[in-house]
Amino acid sequence: MIILGIDPGTRYAGYAVLKKANQKTCLIDAGCFDVHKSGGLINKIGDLYGLISEKVKRHQVTHLALETPFLYKNASTFLKLGYVRGILYLIAYQNKLKLSEYAPSVVKQAVTGYGKASKEQVSNMILRFFKIKKPKRDDITDAIAIALCALWRL
Amino acid sequence: MIILGIDPGTRYAGYAVLKKANQKTCLIDAGCFDVHKSGGLINKIGDLYGLISEKVKRHQVTHLALETPFLYKNASTFLKLGYVRGILYLIAYQNKLKLSEYAPSVVKQAVTGYGKASKEQVSNMILRFFKIKKPKRDDITDAIAIALCALWRL
Repeated sequence: MIILGIDPGTRYAGYAVLKKANQKTCLIDAGCFDVHKSGGLINKIGDLYGLISEKVKRHQVTHLALETPFLYKNASTFLKLGYVRGILYLIAYQNKLKLSEYAPSVVKQAVTGYGKASKEQVSNMILRFFKIKKPKRDDITDAIAIALCALWRL
Repeated sequence: MIILGIDPGTRYAGYAVLKKANQKTCLIDAGCFDVHKSGGLINKIGDLYGLISEKVKRHQVTHLALETPFLYKNASTFLKLGYVRGILYLIAYQNKLKLSEYAPSVVKQAVTGYGKASKEQVSNMILRFFKIKKPKRDDITDAIAIALCALWRL
């Protein structure tokens, strides 16, 4: 079971690849897809599709993990999030990945034991668990938390 | 210039392919992509991507025309519409199509001369213009109207 967790956005998208081997949870890859300079929305979508598909193939990912979306106050942002999620669904289809979605509170509960934990508490738990330094962007630790939640619940 | 107009949905999506030849506007193809039996949302998205990509390649489409989305009262429907639009943006990227979006009132104005025309008025104009019979589904005449609006305005 190799899980790709994604915290999607149309400018930056955090990602993390986790694997369970010999009862140990290994963080294989994590980072942030940066498409904020790709140009218009069409190019951002196209570049994200290429970058994520490449990760799926390289790491032979079997599962895709996402957070369930919540309605933003800004309808335009919400719709654009839908664009990115559509691409993720297509990647799941094309690569025969199992897709799991978890409410933000479920991810927090899984990682910190508390469903209303702050972003910082989630981040701190992730850094301690994998003994890694704080990354530049929060969406990276968010993606790791989503993947970890999936690994523990699947 | 070969235009593909799409009226997207996650169960049915109307489409129309228009071409301008010798100052005449030709309706090359029109119909409805039916994915309501594809299974879950992942399969619907995957099948729609395949069906639309195939039309683009077969008709050597150069332009993609859509209506600008409006916020549905139902957030879940709105988000799913985003999924389909993400796929359309990806198809535009992969096939180097120019993408144009028009507000519903602009499409109605272009086709009937009146921005607040009813669905039926739009449909009637389309049927008379192309001398075709009323199709089974409204989203087909809607897609023809969107493509026609693009053809006249581009």
